[in-house]
Order: sequence, then C-alpha cells, then structure tokens
Amino acid sequence: MNINLQDTIVALATPSGVGAIGVIRLSGEEAIHICNKAFKGKNLLNQKSHTIHFGTIRDEQNHIIDEVLVALFVSPKSYTGENVVEISCHGSNYIIQQIIQLFLRHGARMAKPGEFTMRAFLNGQLDLSQAEAVADLIASDSEAAHAMAMHQMRGGFSGEIQKLREELIHFASLIELELDFSEEDVEFADRDDLKKLIYKIQQLIKRLTDSFQLGNVIKNGVITVIAGRPNAGKSTLLNALLNEERAIVSEIAGTTRDTIEEVLNINGVQFRIIDTAGIREATDKIEAIGVQKAMQEIKRSSILVYVFDAQTMTETELQNDLNKLNRKDMTTIVIANKMDLIDNPSIFDDFNALTISAKDKINLEAVRTALFEAVANGKINLQSTIVSNTRHYDALQKANKSLDDVLNGMSMGITGDFLAQDIRHALIYLGEITGEIDVDRDILGNIFGNFCIGK
Amino acid sequence: MNINLQDTIVALATPSGVGAIGVIRLSGEEAIHICNKAFKGKNLLNQKSHTIHFGTIRDEQNHIIDEVLVALFVSPKSYTGENVVEISCHGSNYIIQQIIQLFLRHGARMAKPGEFTMRAFLNGQLDLSQAEAVADLIASDSEAAHAMAMHQMRGGFSGEIQKLREELIHFASLIELELDFSEEDVEFADRDDLKKLIYKIQQLIKRLTDSFQLGNVIKNGVITVIAGRPNAGKSTLLNALLNEERAIVSEIAGTTRDTIEEVLNINGVQFRIIDTAGIREATDKIEAIGVQKAMQEIKRSSILVYVFDAQTMTETELQNDLNKLNRKDMTTIVIANKMDLIDNPSIFDDFNALTISAKDKINLEAVRTALFEAVANGKINLQSTIVSNTRHYDALQKANKSLDDVLNGMSMGITGDFLAQDIRHALIYLGEITGEIDVDRDILGNIFGNFCIGK
Repeated sequence: MNINLQDTIVALATPSGVGAIGVIRLSGEEAIHICNKAFKGKNLLNQKSHTIHFGTIRDEQNHIIDEVLVALFVSPKSYTGENVVEISCHGSNYIIQQIIQLFLRHGARMAKPGEFTMRAFLNGQLDLSQAEAVADLIASDSEAAHAMAMHQMRGGFSGEIQKLREELIHFASLIELELDFSEEDVEFADRDDLKKLIYKIQQLIKRLTDSFQLGNVIKNGVITVIAGRPNAGKSTLLNALLNEERAIVSEIAGTTRDTIEEVLNINGVQFRIIDTAGIREATDKIEAIGVQKAMQEIKRSSILVYVFDAQTMTETELQNDLNKLNRKDMTTIVIANKMDLIDNPSIFDDFNALTISAKDKINLEAVRTALFEAVANGKINLQSTIVSNTRHYDALQKANKSLDDVLNGMSMGITGDFLAQDIRHALIYLGEITGEIDVDRDILGNIFGNFCIGK
Repeated sequence: MNINLQDTIVALATPSGVGAIGVIRLSGEEAIHICNKAFKGKNLLNQKSHTIHFGTIRDEQNHIIDEVLVALFVSPKSYTGENVVEISCHGSNYIIQQIIQLFLRHGARMAKPGEFTMRAFLNGQLDLSQAEAVADLIASDSEAAHAMAMHQMRGGFSGEIQKLREELIHFASLIELELDFSEEDVEFADRDDLKKLIYKIQQLIKRLTDSFQLGNVIKNGVITVIAGRPNAGKSTLLNALLNEERAIVSEIAGTTRDTIEEVLNINGVQFRIIDTAGIREATDKIEAIGVQKAMQEIKRSSILVYVFDAQTMTETELQNDLNKLNRKDMTTIVIANKMDLIDNPSIFDDFNALTISAKDKINLEAVRTALFEAVANGKINLQSTIVSNTRHYDALQKANKSLDDVLNGMSMGITGDFLAQDIRHALIYLGEITGEIDVDRDILGNIFGNFCIGK
C-alpha cells in the first residue's frame, strides 16, 4: 500500500442511496483551502475549529451546485489529526458526485477505503487495535458485537498490554545492559522478577486468547444447525423461535446469507440458524444431495440442535443418530419434540433432552436458554475484554510462544544475548497489536482495505 | 395531517445502509435539552449556535452507545427555525437505532416524512414552492433536473409571482374601497392600469405553463421508444447510444424500471429509452404479445425513434409503418440504419431520415442531437425558470382562468363586487403556489408526505 499523507483526500462519508442529507469529508493540509475555493459564504480560512457555516458550493462557472453546511475541524483537533472539513449537502447522488468532482478538480484525490482512519492511526489519534475496532463498530449489528467493538475502540486491552509490555522493555534493557558488562558476570535484571512478569503477561494472554472463540462468534454469529429425521419438526421449531424474535430479526439488514439461514438474536448474541433436510437413508438422488448438504452444514457448525419426534423415536435410533452427528468440539442440544402427544415424557431423560412442543410453542424458552448457555457458559459479560480479531489472536499466540522460549531459556541457563532476543520477539508481537512497533505496510493495507470508503 | 409544532422530532437524516457515519437530526424546542440528557462532554445548554462538540452518547445505565460529534443550531438560526441538533455517529444500523430509541425515551417523537421541511415552511424559513423544491433537489439525478430544482429552491418564480400578486392586491383593495363609496360612482382603481397588470400576469403565467411540459420531462425523463421491423438494428442502436454513455448511466441508481428500459443522458436531460420487439404481422401467439406490447409503449412515449434497414426497406413500406405508428403529439425521428451497405443513400430524403450505421457507430451524434432538439427545440436554458410541479401548473391555470373572468367582466361592465370576487379568486390561486395564503392541511400533508423521512 502506497501511504501518502501529503495529499488531501475526499470521500462520501454517508451511505449512498436516498436520504435527506449526504456528508462529504475532506482531510489533509489543504482541506479547508480546497473547500474555500468552492464555497461562497464566510471566508473559511479565518474561522475557528468546530464551527459550522452556511453557504453555497459553486462550480468554476459560478453555478450553484448546492446550499450546504460546512463543518470545520482544524488540525490537530480532528478525527484524522489533520485539517478536516465535512460538507452536509442535500442527499442527491447527482449533487454529491458534482461536489466531489469539483473538489478533485480543486486538488483533492479520492480517499481509499479506510484511509481517514489510517491517517488517524498514523497521526497518533488512535492505536492500531482501536482503529480496527472502528470497522467492527460500523459493522456491529447486535448488542454483543457493539459492546465488544466499543470496548476495544475505547482502549480495550491495549492499555493492559502496553503497561505489561513497558515492564518487559525495562527487563530487556537491563539484560542488554548486562551484555555490555558480560565479563563481570553481573545480573541487573532480577530473574525471579522477570519470571513473575512473564507469568503475569502469559495470564493476560491466556485470558485474552480464551475469549477469542466467544469474540469470534459474537462478531460473526454462532453457526447453529437444526438437524434430525424427516418430519421431526425442525422447520416448525425454527419458525417458532423466529416468530417471537421477528421484530429484532427484521431490523437487521443483510443478515440472511442464503435461503435456509436465519438470524436469531438471544440476549444480544446472534445465532445463524441453518435448517437442514431431514436425515435418513435417501430414497432417491435428489434427497441424497439434501442429506449430504445437511451433513456438511453440521460439520461447520458450532452448535447442533438435534430435534426428534418423541412419539416415534426409539432410544436406540436416537443413540445411533447422535453417534453419527456429534463432534467433540461442538455443543449438542437434544430436543424431544411433540412431547404434548406422548404419555411418558421421562423415557429420554438419559439424553438430557429438552422436552418441547414446537407447534404449540411450549418450553421454547428452554431452547433459547440452552443456546445462549452454549456460547456463554452462563458467564458472558459484555463489558469485559474480548478478543475478536484474528490478527490480535495470532500475535498473542506468537507472543506467548516467545515468552515460553524465554522461560525455557532461563531454566536451561542460556546466555543473556539469547534471552534478550526471545524477549525482543515477544515485544514485537505484543507491539504489533497496538501498532507501537512499525507494522508492515502490507498489513496496514490489509487492515484498512476492509473499511468502507469515507471512514 | 395532524400538525403539531410543540413536539421535538427525531429521525435519521442520512440514507440507511453501510457508511462511515450516520447523522441523526433532532428539531424542536427541547432538541438541545433532549440531546444533553444523553450526552457526556460539555454541557450543550451553554454552547453557542453553529458549534460542534465531541463526546459520548450514553444510555440510562451510563453504557456508551457511541462516540459522537454533536452540531448545535440555536433557534431561529437553523433549517427548521427551531432548535436543531445533528448527531454524527458511526454508521452502524444498530448504533443509529439505539440512539434514536434513547431520544424517544427522553421525550422526542419520530418525525414524519418531510416534517423537518414542513416546519421550515410553517416557521417562515422557506415558501411552499421552495420547500417543494427541496424534495425535487434530493431526487434530482441529471444536470437539468438539478438546475431546475435548485433554481426553484433559490426562489425561482416565487419572487415574480409575489410581486405581481401584491400589485393585484393593491387593485383589489381599491376596488373594494369603491364598494364602500358605491353611491358616489367613483373609480379609485384605474381600469386601464388594471388591464395592463392582468396582461402582464397572464404573460408570466403563459411563460410558466408553457415550460411545464419541458419541466415534466426534465423531472421524470423523456419516454422514448425505439421501434421498427425485426432486424432493423434497434437493439444495436440502443447499445451504441448507451455504450458511449455507460459511465453516466451506471452512476444513476434505480433508473432502469424494467428489463427493456435504459436511461440515456444527453446534455443533462434524461431519456428513458425503451427497446421494443420488431413490429410485423406476428407469426405466432408469443410474438403477437411482443408486438402488442411494443404498440402500447409507443402510445405512452413522447418520442418515437423509428429505425429501418436501408438495404431492404421500400419507400411504401416505410410510409405505411409511419402512418401506423405516428401520433400528432409525439416527435418522430426516422433513422435509416446500415447506410454503409447501400449505394444510393438519398432515396429516403423525403422522410428526413438520419443516415447512420449503428454497428459501426457512424453518425450517432446526429441521433443524439435530434433527441435533444426534440425536447428543447434547441432553446433549453437550464438557468431559466421552468415549472415542473403539477400543483403549480394547476394553480397557474386556475389563476389564469380567474383573470380571464376579470377581463371579461370589465368588458361586460359588471359591478365592482363581482370584479372584486374574481380578483380574489386569482389571488388565492397565485398565493397557493408560494403558500402565502392558508393552504389546506390535507394539501400540506400531501406535499410533505412525498419527502423522505429525515428531511
């Protein structure tokens, strides 16, 4: 990625589409100057930061493109740390395009995706993990995803990591100092204190990496498959669960990824629920494809909701099905449906089956609770620190490995220079999370390339 | 429509969808107070108009919903004339919904479509025709539609009408004064001057109503049908015309209404071009439906582009087709295609046919010019006053009719009280355009109900 902070960049900051207003954002040294060339009203160059000015945007022929409000943010008191101008115009695509093209002619260039936030990072307004949280925040569509992204954007674990990393830097410098006095066999760095610090850092890392699975499902939704034999009541259960949540479901745009996937929001966590074809020995080719597809969906799911018809199922059949479908790394919730129709509901007690009637919506709350517990183990705390970013997870694991090397090295009595090298590795990995060490430009391009344009 | 200016209203002002930011707008006496309840940062109640403040929006549990910028506009220096607050938050639907719901709990209510602009009108910030232009401006998707809406929003013909209307009021009051002195047979109002004024007003009305057809096509696009016999090169022509305009076409969202309609922008005017099935004696039922549909499209079009194959067409066939398709109130452009393949291009001179080759893109500019001229008669001036609003057109025609009645009355020597009544009718119709007279609340509801919410 070619990083150029000299240019003044421009982009539409609001979604395209029909709305009352659109906001066009300029950032860079020339931002106010470029806007002023097109603005008729007060002279923007003489105005204070954080003020708003009414006027018209005019093209080179003095034709009015629009009546606008211009908001000024003078460096360094802005999102990017640079001069920023936000122009609120009428929400017509034609007007927005005309204004942006005018600014391009006046010397701005189109912003790349995420370039405003990348500049905020490069100008020290945000650390890297905070910058990444901005994209998560914009994408957040549930209470849990929002709370997680907000926590990270407000500082999250950056502060903790930074503090421990600084203590580790202190030890690294002491050990490097020892190297200068290597002939005198001194130990400036207390090895026991170093070990204690490393344990402390590793504890934090463990806590954070342990939260990753939860973070990931919160961010992307928990893939949950409803499976079972034909006519067990799978679709009835899905509809019953969705029905009571319809208001919440319908508010979330673009959640349904394909025809058989629905989104269910339980206590702020999103479950991507996949209904599947009934599983049995297929009688024809088309049915065989359906069963095969169901098996594939079960393979990629975190939770299996196995539904059976309590009227007709035998314990042996149930055991066989579960043996066939269950995976060690998934949670299976067994549901005995149509319980209202049978006499002896206790026969499936051995399977910890939830007894419900999907059709009459009896005991659905138990299903909902079981789903939520499967994710949260009853201990989900939306205000706590949760890692949801794969890049952070990788860096934390690598830092942990380097710290293991330091500990092993010490117990094996390796020399200070090797020790210093392992510590330096750990420092680099920890620093990558917040961007304190120089992050590879390709990585930056990767991170900010996933943003929308205008942010 | 229930009009209540006491409430504080709230809505999303930017399009919904993915974007860097969303802007939520509050308007009403309590706007700043309601925002301040949720805002943590400076006390907004103590800040000046047209200033921006960074802080957080927090719910009743003090949980941060988002970091935001709050822009303050203190009454009467705002769009609506009321206190207005605009909150720029991260562009997540979840966050936007949370903030709006919080404001609802704090005492705001959801704005109705166009309610911000209706308040601007009711508070005297805009006249009615200007307010209507705001919706046109947002919907404008071509240079001509934009120029027309902008002209109207900036005052347009309101000023002219208002001035002439005031002169007419002057005469009306003089004539009503005569009634008080009716026994003395005086004439305070000079009848010749009154006639002159009425002629002047009628001239303006004629100029404005004459522009309506143009205004309407600019606003909605000119419906243009390409027709001709099978294999004449209709689709090739459409593609050739579109090809060079592809960049402009693709920028405009939602223009293509069905599979065979494409939008072509010529000098800022939009042509909705409809390709049709070849017209001939149908050989089967399905083809017959296609031909029937083509004939229907031709019926509703303003321009017929008749294309024929110059290699195979005879003059008699051409004359027959034109007789069959032509309507008095449409412009027909006759195009002789595949002219590169024939020896004597002059044989169709009697039909004023444009000679082109759609395949090799020869002489397409002539087609484009002919289309534009058909609309503009070569005299389109985007900076001039054009009426595009049916409501204005109706009011102008009714005013004109009342003025005719005044003139007829005078020539027939009717008494002053009847004269005064006809003048009053004209005044009412003229006043309806700008909203100077009390406009029926249902009409207001109609006008602003067509706006998007948030404007």
